[in-house]
Amino acid sequence: MASSNHLKLLGGWFSPFALRVKIALSIKSLVYEDIEETLNPKSQLLLQSNPVHKKIPVLLHEDKPICESRIIVEYIDEVWNSGPSFLPSDAYDRAMARFWAAYVDDKLFVAMRNAVSEEDEEARKAYLEEIEDSLVTMEGELQKYCREGKGYFGGEEIGLVDITFGSLLCWVSVIETMNRRKMIVEEKHPCLVKWADRFAFDPNVKGLIPETEKLIEFAKALQMKWKAAASAK
Amino acid sequence: MASSNHLKLLGGWFSPFALRVKIALSIKSLVYEDIEETLNPKSQLLLQSNPVHKKIPVLLHEDKPICESRIIVEYIDEVWNSGPSFLPSDAYDRAMARFWAAYVDDKLFVAMRNAVSEEDEEARKAYLEEIEDSLVTMEGELQKYCREGKGYFGGEEIGLVDITFGSLLCWVSVIETMNRRKMIVEEKHPCLVKWADRFAFDPNVKGLIPETEKLIEFAKALQMKWKAAASAK
Repeated sequence: MASSNHLKLLGGWFSPFALRVKIALSIKSLVYEDIEETLNPKSQLLLQSNPVHKKIPVLLHEDKPICESRIIVEYIDEVWNSGPSFLPSDAYDRAMARFWAAYVDDKLFVAMRNAVSEEDEEARKAYLEEIEDSLVTMEGELQKYCREGKGYFGGEEIGLVDITFGSLLCWVSVIETMNRRKMIVEEKHPCLVKWADRFAFDPNVKGLIPETEKLIEFAKALQMKWKAAASAK
Repeated sequence: MASSNHLKLLGGWFSPFALRVKIALSIKSLVYEDIEETLNPKSQLLLQSNPVHKKIPVLLHEDKPICESRIIVEYIDEVWNSGPSFLPSDAYDRAMARFWAAYVDDKLFVAMRNAVSEEDEEARKAYLEEIEDSLVTMEGELQKYCREGKGYFGGEEIGLVDITFGSLLCWVSVIETMNRRKMIVEEKHPCLVKWADRFAFDPNVKGLIPETEKLIEFAKALQMKWKAAASAK
């Protein structure tokens, strides 16, 4: 294990964004203080560290805050070489990795968040279809690497796209269970199915993924909170 | 001028995102073929080059497409050193630059787009206030550099944050004019006012900014198109 370099992570056990940072720190063998953020009210440390968005995760490195999960993952990659690089060495491949990582957040995650928050069944169905469309797109991208015998997006090792996308898998399971609809399936996503297993059982990932059952309880509590807030309007 | 390296830009004269790429190419003294994209229908070249989002801008480098304006700007910076770097050399400063560039797109631009597309006056007012809040936040960030005598976000030269934010200024003018409401004002944004002038008159930027009057015509045509599409539903 590399020395701690005074690293603190303001995170939350349920957060796929905090999970990204945990995986990145684990791959680089970095020791850090894992601070479970209180969300209601938010801690003074969070509000001071991320005054703009007031959101987890925040990585504090020698007390200097870095915010936004993909930016944190790139920062970790640039500062520490105590593990494989998350980004390819070639500039074009690096641009592609950033493109797909952004796609995961802009398309897949947005549809997932909407699917969890939407009460109306018809509207939710449309979001579930958006999720499925994004999964098909990601399968198409992954197949390029599968064909070359590579196990991850862009190569042999877990990289930015794997971390970004892989951290959402536990929440895909939540949505699948809550909607009784399997979304990542062998026949439509032969490469994704294998990739998801490979990712989840990687020694740097394995112990970090929250249990689906616990996340479902969390999601239900969230939905009730949103419902109460909406009816109070 | 550095050699063209077979660069083609699929852009649009009205697009703040294409403008970012043009400014980045200009700072690096790169020659490129400027292809004005036809939007209705979209060109085969655009659909092939950006099959995921089908959006401009796309930079073709030796026929390999790079999409998403901030990713393109980082790519240009990493490949060519024929001009000053857009990103700081220090990893923490680089993370900060990426953070503020993302903020510009996630907060300021989203509010601007909503302000242009929203017909309801009350709702539009709320978006105009969101724009103003973001401008105050950006002023606060810029003041840190102003105090050190620096003219741009992060330094003496135009960088990623300047390119990202500066390319929206012409559309801020459009929104100001269309809503008869000045948004960047000396008393609230003393640094932004100077920065906006400095940016607009930089030799690498000056000739590239579209005229406000032409953009207003374009915005009005867009609004009519959206209105027709909404009433056809």
